Amino acid sequence: MASVIPASNSSMRSDRNTYVGKRFVHVKNAYLDSMDEDILYHLDLGTKTHNLPAMFGDVKFVCVGSPNRMKAFALFMHKELGLEEAEEDIKDICAGTDRYCMYKTGPHVMVIPSISIMLHELITLLHHARCCDVTIIRIGTSGGIGIAPGTVVITDIAVDSFFKPRFEQVILDNIVTRSTELDKELSEELFNCSKEIPNFPTFIGHTMCTYDFYEGQGRLDGALCSFSREKKLDYLKRAYKAGVRNIEMESTVFAAMCGLCGLKGKLFMNA
Amino acid sequence: MASVIPASNSSMRSDRNTYVGKRFVHVKNAYLDSMDEDILYHLDLGTKTHNLPAMFGDVKFVCVGSPNRMKAFALFMHKELGLEEAEEDIKDICAGTDRYCMYKTGPHVMVIPSISIMLHELITLLHHARCCDVTIIRIGTSGGIGIAPGTVVITDIAVDSFFKPRFEQVILDNIVTRSTELDKELSEELFNCSKEIPNFPTFIGHTMCTYDFYEGQGRLDGALCSFSREKKLDYLKRAYKAGVRNIEMESTVFAAMCGLCGLKGKLFMNA
Repeated sequence: MASVIPASNSSMRSDRNTYVGKRFVHVKNAYLDSMDEDILYHLDLGTKTHNLPAMFGDVKFVCVGSPNRMKAFALFMHKELGLEEAEEDIKDICAGTDRYCMYKTGPHVMVIPSISIMLHELITLLHHARCCDVTIIRIGTSGGIGIAPGTVVITDIAVDSFFKPRFEQVILDNIVTRSTELDKELSEELFNCSKEIPNFPTFIGHTMCTYDFYEGQGRLDGALCSFSREKKLDYLKRAYKAGVRNIEMESTVFAAMCGLCGLKGKLFMNA
Repeated sequence: MASVIPASNSSMRSDRNTYVGKRFVHVKNAYLDSMDEDILYHLDLGTKTHNLPAMFGDVKFVCVGSPNRMKAFALFMHKELGLEEAEEDIKDICAGTDRYCMYKTGPHVMVIPSISIMLHELITLLHHARCCDVTIIRIGTSGGIGIAPGTVVITDIAVDSFFKPRFEQVILDNIVTRSTELDKELSEELFNCSKEIPNFPTFIGHTMCTYDFYEGQGRLDGALCSFSREKKLDYLKRAYKAGVRNIEMESTVFAAMCGLCGLKGKLFMNA
């Protein structure tokens, strides 16, 4: 696995030392701190236009999912936390952009994919906001393999279409392979929580990430399908044997970026 | 280049012959027509719940872009076409899903990425609606290379990060390489239109497609950056020399799917 810029990265900055024992979100980009202004285009936020530490510095949990689900979840958390602020004040922070929505309630932020741009900008945002000890959970829907519909899968490792725990990132015209292991303790914690809820079937397993929803996941519908039902079933059986319990389209890049940037990351998805 | 299911595909169906000289949108999936019901999940449409030929059969042009741009464009086209229907009746057809928006005004449909799922379902929709002679144009923003900001690039060929005219589709655990050439006549037509508009600088050129907005496109911002400014500039110079005039993230899969499914496809993007 190729490495990125070494740890001498100035973005680790000196004020890191003032938070002894706290793990800051780190970026691996030597250019960031020398920039006059850093604009997070797709989030409609910037270091000069927004006081990011004041807005986001208290963030500990980030949830990622589709817009309506995340809005509903923001309202739910608002109630659960008994916050005083009126519900109507929970507004889309990214309303000025056409790409993403973001809702914040208390120290929680919910953001929308597509995942790779969003993660770049979200992690940079957490860095600018000087956040520490951040956990990021992707909540969503996935396709289950050999498990009952409705079962929740907690991802231990994200694997690619070839069942390998890796994400191949193209950087300029080079291919760099990154690890996709996820935080182990968090799997156990979430699994223990799930046991406390009645009728909440939950597994810890591998999640397979594909680039395509149709041909990549062996679907027989969609505009193009070049394989037989038998080939599809054989592929899914081999995936199950390799430990895969669900399939989706974001887990490997999610795991790779969390790992590189010091975030506790986890996928928690309905099958 | 590997081929998909041969042309004996039953989805080419017999009623194709009733429209002599018209090119139907074709899907390359032998399973589609034998299905009792085909649900286009991400579009919130289905063959049993919606009369797709009545709703979409007149479609000739499809524009793809971000939600607000597409809504604004739908309203603009509505006025330009002098349609009688009230503007308020232009509603999001996919409002029941959390993924995409779609506006229809007259025989025009505007749809939102992410591109590969959307194209699978859109092309299947056009097939179910029995559309013919359909042109699909992606309108959007891209990053220019060696051209003035604001210049429009009409894509002749989409290339990957290695400047090759190909899209590598993972099908189950096989990699299949597909061609990314686009309709040639349409380039000339669009280019001639652009010449009629004052101060509308336009080029025909190659468009490079990357999987990532930051590391893939040589950006120095973003959470991860492992290359130097010199490496970045060298890469962009090599891209320019290979004929690339702009960069974005959807053109190769767009071109590959249009080519395979008999759609006249074109990218028309601001640099």
